Amino acid sequence: MPEDSMDKPSIVTCTAPVNIAVIKYWGKRDEDLILPINSSLSVTLHQDQLKTTTTVAISRSFQEDRLWLNGKEEDITHQRLQSCLREIRRLARKRRNDGDARSEDSVGLSHKVHICSVNNFPTAAGLASSAAGFACLVYTLAQAFGVEGELSGIARQGSGSACRSMYGGFVQWIMGSKEDGNDSVAQQVEPESHWPELRILVLVVSSERKPIGSTSGMQTSVQTSLLLQHRAEAVVPRRMVDMIEAVRRKDFPAFAELTMKDSNQFHATCLDTHPPIFYLNSVSQQIIHLVHRYNKYCGETRVAYSFDAGPNAVIFTLQQFVPEFVQLVQHFFPPDRNGEDFIKGLPVKGAALSMELKQNIGLEPVPKGINYIISTKAGPGPRVVDDPSQHLLSAEGLPKKTTV
Amino acid sequence: MPEDSMDKPSIVTCTAPVNIAVIKYWGKRDEDLILPINSSLSVTLHQDQLKTTTTVAISRSFQEDRLWLNGKEEDITHQRLQSCLREIRRLARKRRNDGDARSEDSVGLSHKVHICSVNNFPTAAGLASSAAGFACLVYTLAQAFGVEGELSGIARQGSGSACRSMYGGFVQWIMGSKEDGNDSVAQQVEPESHWPELRILVLVVSSERKPIGSTSGMQTSVQTSLLLQHRAEAVVPRRMVDMIEAVRRKDFPAFAELTMKDSNQFHATCLDTHPPIFYLNSVSQQIIHLVHRYNKYCGETRVAYSFDAGPNAVIFTLQQFVPEFVQLVQHFFPPDRNGEDFIKGLPVKGAALSMELKQNIGLEPVPKGINYIISTKAGPGPRVVDDPSQHLLSAEGLPKKTTV
Repeated sequence: MPEDSMDKPSIVTCTAPVNIAVIKYWGKRDEDLILPINSSLSVTLHQDQLKTTTTVAISRSFQEDRLWLNGKEEDITHQRLQSCLREIRRLARKRRNDGDARSEDSVGLSHKVHICSVNNFPTAAGLASSAAGFACLVYTLAQAFGVEGELSGIARQGSGSACRSMYGGFVQWIMGSKEDGNDSVAQQVEPESHWPELRILVLVVSSERKPIGSTSGMQTSVQTSLLLQHRAEAVVPRRMVDMIEAVRRKDFPAFAELTMKDSNQFHATCLDTHPPIFYLNSVSQQIIHLVHRYNKYCGETRVAYSFDAGPNAVIFTLQQFVPEFVQLVQHFFPPDRNGEDFIKGLPVKGAALSMELKQNIGLEPVPKGINYIISTKAGPGPRVVDDPSQHLLSAEGLPKKTTV
Repeated sequence: MPEDSMDKPSIVTCTAPVNIAVIKYWGKRDEDLILPINSSLSVTLHQDQLKTTTTVAISRSFQEDRLWLNGKEEDITHQRLQSCLREIRRLARKRRNDGDARSEDSVGLSHKVHICSVNNFPTAAGLASSAAGFACLVYTLAQAFGVEGELSGIARQGSGSACRSMYGGFVQWIMGSKEDGNDSVAQQVEPESHWPELRILVLVVSSERKPIGSTSGMQTSVQTSLLLQHRAEAVVPRRMVDMIEAVRRKDFPAFAELTMKDSNQFHATCLDTHPPIFYLNSVSQQIIHLVHRYNKYCGETRVAYSFDAGPNAVIFTLQQFVPEFVQLVQHFFPPDRNGEDFIKGLPVKGAALSMELKQNIGLEPVPKGINYIISTKAGPGPRVVDDPSQHLLSAEGLPKKTTV
């Protein structure tokens, strides 16, 4: 191999999805290894709407590991980033030592990496970008170092919920019981093709205050909430079984009721934390009322909500109910600009609302309470991007102008 | 006795206090007898600020039992009112049959009663008026029928928390275990004189929506919340012991921390109810933040909050901290009218707030978020009013003009 080609960085780009837990993860039993106090289950969102893209370049000419996030260089010595880098390099070394043919010609393990990552959605949307971010980092590093196999346990060490973003469709994170955390991994329950009618709407809620971060929030909860331990031990195990069953049978009412109950119970444990943590604001509360009153009016459970560590609602419903429910959201949270740009993502047909329905809901409209809606569905796991023009790093391994 | 005096009604007037639970009552194990799923503990508020006054008249000339509440005649066939009337008459009959001298000359048991009751505080204040109301009804009926002894078990059958308003100071409602509920009664832990430095501020919060009633709310919680049963069985028993100890030792930080934790846990079980129940609104959340940040700034727990089934905050603090904290409330919830009439009840001295304190709290002020403050303290239990001019019923047993 000619010397100049040895100096050219080896570059790979991948994308990874966001996921939304329907059985919530809240609380670690091991802070360093990121081992949870209960199993959880999520739906992977489609990358057409929400994704992280990461490029990794490896070269013997790089002086040090470097990282750019959303156009800004960040400190790569962050402990969790280092955990992921260390674990991937360890696996790559193991492969080489085991004499794996593909590893033989893989990039040198002592070489430094440049990492560049961007989200196609604003951080302000309050979506857990760290899950997609760490899933994408681990997946892309693995490609770059020629590592294959179970990687969710490494993604988990970057950000707990990132392990679930390593798979598409419906994914469980099995809490595991081993002290070294090797059995705390994600597993696909059903692929995204399993339930094509399921639709997901992210209602991005206006909020002035920045809520408390989930890492410190769940620490305080584990230390102070007397209800959280009971939830983890006595409630979640049964709910995991029921939720997997509901997903397998595509039983929307069962899926929806469990999703809402589990979201509310997670926020209940936040309130039982001392000092208490509030993620739901008055608009979140209005959305909850709207969903329950709509379901009651319909005489069946057509819509469910789930809230993570912030005020945004994630709505689950079936394709056929999307137009009416979105119209209802626009009616009770009248947007700024006549609904223009209010709905992003998958197109939503218009619908007429009966006077009877609006009166039955009987809520006071909250103008501009919701900034916009992202309309999406379940989607696949991380992917390699084959088109080299999509790389975020130049042939020299530095961020392209467009990404800074 | 001359015939005309026999026709004159026998009239008695009493007053009874409001109480605020610091270990909350939420959930019944028997709906008819009103037996709770856990014990609770409350502070009786002083009647100088908040009280119910009830007059009972008994006469052979009355055709039927009648009831006037806050100036309006109400249906007396209400099941819980009937429970109280029946139980008092049963005790009176028992006394007479047992040959009690005082009962001999007591008013005829077959005679009908007229009852008139008023609160000196607006129902809109969102304070549980039913506790003071039923305590006053039972206490006054007992006086009228010459019944003495343990009456909290009867008040309990009117409204659960009413049993705690039968005593002054610090009162526990022991849940009991008997099926007939005879051991589910209130007991004074310490009299109101025990802790003279303790001060109570009711922050009456502005609210548009009428929250869900506590009777139906706790029914839904018992049926659907998986956390409520755990709270009742595994959390409250220990907290009752700790709270009684904190009261006995006048340990304000211990009292305050338990009070806040228990209030938050009660609201957590409401959120874990399906559909969820929200009593705290955004102003309630702001008050909670204010209290925690103030305590943190002070480096000690000087103030505690407790919320019942509505957005109003009840603040517990010590006399010496009242001026600064009230000033802080006025700063972060600037009232409409320059603070005039903002503070009702016990006078509060002015205080200056340092810039450092205000900046440390760092909350966005919410103008008119709080309507007014009622400044009060712990007070005595129900009392007989000796002055006949205070009767709410005329010599004929009908409401006086001033009370309708």
